Amino acid sequence: MRFIVGTAGGPQSVFGVEGSKAVNLSAAVGAIGSDLSALAADPALLARARDAMAAGGEIVEVSSITPALPITAPGTFICLGLNYVEHIKEGGYEIPDYPALFMRGRNSLMAAGAPMVRPACSERLDYEAELLLIIGKGGRHISRENALDHVFGYTVFNDGSVRDYQRKTHQWTPGKNFDSTGAVGPFVVTPDELPEGAKGLKIESRVGDEILQSSNTANMIWSVADTIAIISEYTTLEPGDHIALGTPPGVGHAKKPNPRWLRPGETVEIEIEGIGVCASPVIDEVALSNEAAE
Amino acid sequence: MRFIVGTAGGPQSVFGVEGSKAVNLSAAVGAIGSDLSALAADPALLARARDAMAAGGEIVEVSSITPALPITAPGTFICLGLNYVEHIKEGGYEIPDYPALFMRGRNSLMAAGAPMVRPACSERLDYEAELLLIIGKGGRHISRENALDHVFGYTVFNDGSVRDYQRKTHQWTPGKNFDSTGAVGPFVVTPDELPEGAKGLKIESRVGDEILQSSNTANMIWSVADTIAIISEYTTLEPGDHIALGTPPGVGHAKKPNPRWLRPGETVEIEIEGIGVCASPVIDEVALSNEAAE
Repeated sequence: MRFIVGTAGGPQSVFGVEGSKAVNLSAAVGAIGSDLSALAADPALLARARDAMAAGGEIVEVSSITPALPITAPGTFICLGLNYVEHIKEGGYEIPDYPALFMRGRNSLMAAGAPMVRPACSERLDYEAELLLIIGKGGRHISRENALDHVFGYTVFNDGSVRDYQRKTHQWTPGKNFDSTGAVGPFVVTPDELPEGAKGLKIESRVGDEILQSSNTANMIWSVADTIAIISEYTTLEPGDHIALGTPPGVGHAKKPNPRWLRPGETVEIEIEGIGVCASPVIDEVALSNEAAE
Repeated sequence: MRFIVGTAGGPQSVFGVEGSKAVNLSAAVGAIGSDLSALAADPALLARARDAMAAGGEIVEVSSITPALPITAPGTFICLGLNYVEHIKEGGYEIPDYPALFMRGRNSLMAAGAPMVRPACSERLDYEAELLLIIGKGGRHISRENALDHVFGYTVFNDGSVRDYQRKTHQWTPGKNFDSTGAVGPFVVTPDELPEGAKGLKIESRVGDEILQSSNTANMIWSVADTIAIISEYTTLEPGDHIALGTPPGVGHAKKPNPRWLRPGETVEIEIEGIGVCASPVIDEVALSNEAAE
């Protein structure tokens, strides 16, 4: 099943998507609420959503929906930093035997289609195409064998990074947490619609017809199942938690002969085969401040 | 004003503390709710809490309260990693010109008095005494001059760390996020009760009469005001967000001739002058699992 969360004239709702049409599932099943958190936590509710989708209902064009975050306030957002060999090399890192894990806070996130904000303090705003998974059933010490049972769905993530702040110290937190730099969505696809572990999907980032990254999720060092097992060794995963799975080579800071930073006025698109396109128009923080002041 | 959140026979409540007595403020002022999140966000409500405290009310002994987390689910928990020169040297790091920042997720936290869990996968469980601030008024681009106006209160934190997992890669996240390793509380003290910026307070960690760390918050490289200014350059701080300010020298992994890891059966105490003592009995994850299975 495919979901999109957003607004289409009415209040924020969860929609089920079939081709270019979307069914308002929040209107059909009140318990669903206005984002995917209830559905991620409750397989019985997901079954009801499937029934409501089959029954049809209040139908809108997908293109008329303004996306919102799939889950408004994810409890925990963990990112796997180095998961494609060629990206590790372009960043000057050694191939690790354990993933580099860091976290993003909620103010760093925005919905697909919303502006990606280049901060006033840096011109080094970079894109990172990533597969993002949303946890369904929570747990600790989840085995690799059972890990895929814990995935509610997959979506697209742009792990937007301010590179000079990422490398001010060995801890990447500031550069990965500027307000409105990490785009999520818009479509969340349940695992039954994709290859096992979302493996073998083309993943790409681009600005207009300039292809910036082009790879395949089959090139990830740590699979979805590996990653869930590794993370749940130290923390209890909860329904709705987000885990981003790292980016392939081709990021802006490693482009030769010159880095390729994102510029205001450009729209960066991340696409993953079978999931969708996450587009973010880039604006300057200064422009945003001026707008807010008008 | 001094607060403690917890239970004393009834539902979880916010109590105001005066000496050994506590007034149930949640019972007196319904809008306060069951933790400090509403108070942190609303200065008018804090004024009502002060009035309720002055009026007295439902009084209990502080010693009869089982502490809970001051804020049940902090939106963001940011830790400053290297903030005392002698601790930086004992860890083998260079003195940085920008703080090493990382984040903790909510499952890594527990209340003062609750067990600190040594995971089954490691014996390298370590303590870190830290001053913790809770944000009141939120904001972005907060200046050093105004930063202290954004502090709701100060409390005690034990930034419990599993050292081998902290150093599996250059990113410290796993070792700083094992379930139930970071103790918070129990007392939250408003800034008017302490020196400006909570500077000049003795900070100590110990097990029984063995003093493990003993320093003073005046030794921090980045002050409370510096830290708020630096973090709010990249992210909008929200009421209730937590910021931990780093630990002084004397952590277990740096003890000579042998590391001094925490062992099940011990109780580790962190004390900050004028705020209080945060005590955590250490237990084994295996013991916890057995208990849960019984």
